[in-house]
Amino acid sequence: GEEPDNTRERVMRAVLVVLRRHGYAGLSIKRIADEAGLEKASIYHHYSDKDDLLFSFLEFVLGLFEREIIQQPGRKPEDQLRELIDRATLGAERASTARNPERAGTVTEAFMIVRSQAIHDRQYRDRITEVDEQLREHLADLTRAAMDDQRQDNADHVATSLQTMMAGAFFQRTTAVDPNLDPARRDAHAYLDRHLGAED
Amino acid sequence: GEEPDNTRERVMRAVLVVLRRHGYAGLSIKRIADEAGLEKASIYHHYSDKDDLLFSFLEFVLGLFEREIIQQPGRKPEDQLRELIDRATLGAERASTARNPERAGTVTEAFMIVRSQAIHDRQYRDRITEVDEQLREHLADLTRAAMDDQRQDNADHVATSLQTMMAGAFFQRTTAVDPNLDPARRDAHAYLDRHLGAED
Repeated sequence: GEEPDNTRERVMRAVLVVLRRHGYAGLSIKRIADEAGLEKASIYHHYSDKDDLLFSFLEFVLGLFEREIIQQPGRKPEDQLRELIDRATLGAERASTARNPERAGTVTEAFMIVRSQAIHDRQYRDRITEVDEQLREHLADLTRAAMDDQRQDNADHVATSLQTMMAGAFFQRTTAVDPNLDPARRDAHAYLDRHLGAED
Repeated sequence: GEEPDNTRERVMRAVLVVLRRHGYAGLSIKRIADEAGLEKASIYHHYSDKDDLLFSFLEFVLGLFEREIIQQPGRKPEDQLRELIDRATLGAERASTARNPERAGTVTEAFMIVRSQAIHDRQYRDRITEVDEQLREHLADLTRAAMDDQRQDNADHVATSLQTMMAGAFFQRTTAVDPNLDPARRDAHAYLDRHLGAED
């Protein structure tokens, strides 16, 4: 038999595919099982019901999303910040250091679909709020590290404002055809130029 | 008997309520009929199927959203722009000229739920793209009217960047608990200060 972890991974990948194809409303255990090449019974062996499966999927997607966002620690904080702006506005497929563009697009879309459930689901909303707070702290840490000493009081403000812009870019990219995100991208970089006050 | 238009309005209002309570995935004709106080047969008299009903609902919500966004023509363009920033970041309930806060919150949430369907549904995505383009033109018209003559080449850029920030604010407000949108709000106003170059 197959390892349980392997089955879970297959199920999660299948949810990703079914979600992009049919949306949340079209997400059935039957479709997930067909996509994963498993019996429905095998899915119910790992997940008590559809809600249980979908909340596991929320965690799975948040994990992928966090891994994409939290960059390698060796790189210059300013470069990491600027790359995050580019990823939000250009998409991973066009950002300079994209490693796996196809998967990246899938993860962004899945994250947005899952996140949109938070509009009516309090459990999702609380979890999304935690993740947003982690992302905000990460952006603030990078901003603080990239700033000279005189400006660091401003780091939280700058990071929080950038986060709103990035949320807008992700949302526009996943729900409209070819939105023009170049003005936001250029303004975000200019905003960093003004606030970092770095010498280089 | 009741006027058809009246029934349609009742059905649309019922979809709004069911959507906020159960999300897209929980939206059934049965629930909509119960909420509207109608028989299912009466709903099928007006709509051929659930997809037909939901696409009508998309148009209904976009109409409400546009009416909220497109302000009275008598007001100063700069004031209209600044109020739109405040509506996006504070919510209609806290923006200065809110007329009907409860309905406004409902409409924003419904718009966001419907818009999130665009991630996997091309028909929704095309329609959302048209509405975004109308909103962008409206913002650009206001920006151009609020600018002095020397700066007007910049109006499209400024309007498009503001639109991304506003999309982020709407998205964060509807999917997270009490996100801090004050930095984006203050930066958007400061951005207008720099770009409008108005005397007052």
